Amino acid sequence: MHIYLASGNRHKQEEFAAILKDHQVSLPADAGIEFNPDETGKTFLENALLKAQALYESVKCPVIADDSGLCIDALGGKPGIYSARYGMENGIQLEAAERNQLVLQQMKGITNRSCRFVCCIVIMLDANRFFTVQETCEGVIAEEPHGEHGFGYDPIVYLPELGKTVAELTAEEKNRLSHRGKAGRLAVHCLSEISKTESTF
Amino acid sequence: MHIYLASGNRHKQEEFAAILKDHQVSLPADAGIEFNPDETGKTFLENALLKAQALYESVKCPVIADDSGLCIDALGGKPGIYSARYGMENGIQLEAAERNQLVLQQMKGITNRSCRFVCCIVIMLDANRFFTVQETCEGVIAEEPHGEHGFGYDPIVYLPELGKTVAELTAEEKNRLSHRGKAGRLAVHCLSEISKTESTF
Repeated sequence: MHIYLASGNRHKQEEFAAILKDHQVSLPADAGIEFNPDETGKTFLENALLKAQALYESVKCPVIADDSGLCIDALGGKPGIYSARYGMENGIQLEAAERNQLVLQQMKGITNRSCRFVCCIVIMLDANRFFTVQETCEGVIAEEPHGEHGFGYDPIVYLPELGKTVAELTAEEKNRLSHRGKAGRLAVHCLSEISKTESTF
Repeated sequence: MHIYLASGNRHKQEEFAAILKDHQVSLPADAGIEFNPDETGKTFLENALLKAQALYESVKCPVIADDSGLCIDALGGKPGIYSARYGMENGIQLEAAERNQLVLQQMKGITNRSCRFVCCIVIMLDANRFFTVQETCEGVIAEEPHGEHGFGYDPIVYLPELGKTVAELTAEEKNRLSHRGKAGRLAVHCLSEISKTESTF
């Protein structure tokens, strides 16, 4: 299936192309479309749906969109849907390392450190047909950053069962355990099932 | 997997038990839970999610919820999420045959008769993990009701490719082509895939 990814990010395109390996993944820019929708939703699902619907309106063929972030129970679910923009002031985005320090500061002295990465994927087949998967990766906020792999909040999310942070996982481990890996695998499975039964794709 | 259906309807329980045949489907009443959530969403997805979340809060184990209806393009998508309550006055719900007459009246003289049945299913595994499928069955509004099978709007939705209304389909045909059949099959497929990879279910 030819599917458009609701993102302007080439890195994300590569990531999704690896997950959706039997399908051709294009960016809006590949079709000359400027894509910069407002993420005004209140949940990961609402934001992923907004992106998928906005892109579907332009391309009128199947699209995939995602929204993800880190939710910390002791902070009432923050940074949540604002994960990428957390701590932003006057329109200036913090570097990942600065954001991590901000979170560690806010979590100082707090004993309930449970948190989870959340990823919601929406695949829209037409204006009325879609499916969505939301998956998680449960962990606890570390006392300090560890590890060099991954990106974003990975160095401060510790996985007790593995005895390391997400930034210390190998690529294979991260793909197997991460919120995005789990949601992606199920989404691909659905897509393959739909492709099997529909001659139009 | 043991899964609760967000409904008070034994007929719907039977229908879902047939779709989810490798799983055990219970109603809230089976756990002594009174279940009567407000359906205040603006879309099928929002209503199905509201029902799933409300029930999950009570049972704290996997739940399935659905919302469905008929959308008529020339009526701006009506009856839509109000399909069951369409034409209701002073709290008195119309019989299916009366609702169908109301729709035929509203469609009198209108040449664009395209419509679709829509079904959105949500399966919630825990407070943060879920998947959803929305499927459709495309048709046109007939000039008059035909057929004795099915229920609701089935007699006035004509499927040009089959040359009959949904109420004239056999149970096997309806299961294969209907919005609920298609969404249900994909949901079951996802559930089986998840059950395979998780020892907790």
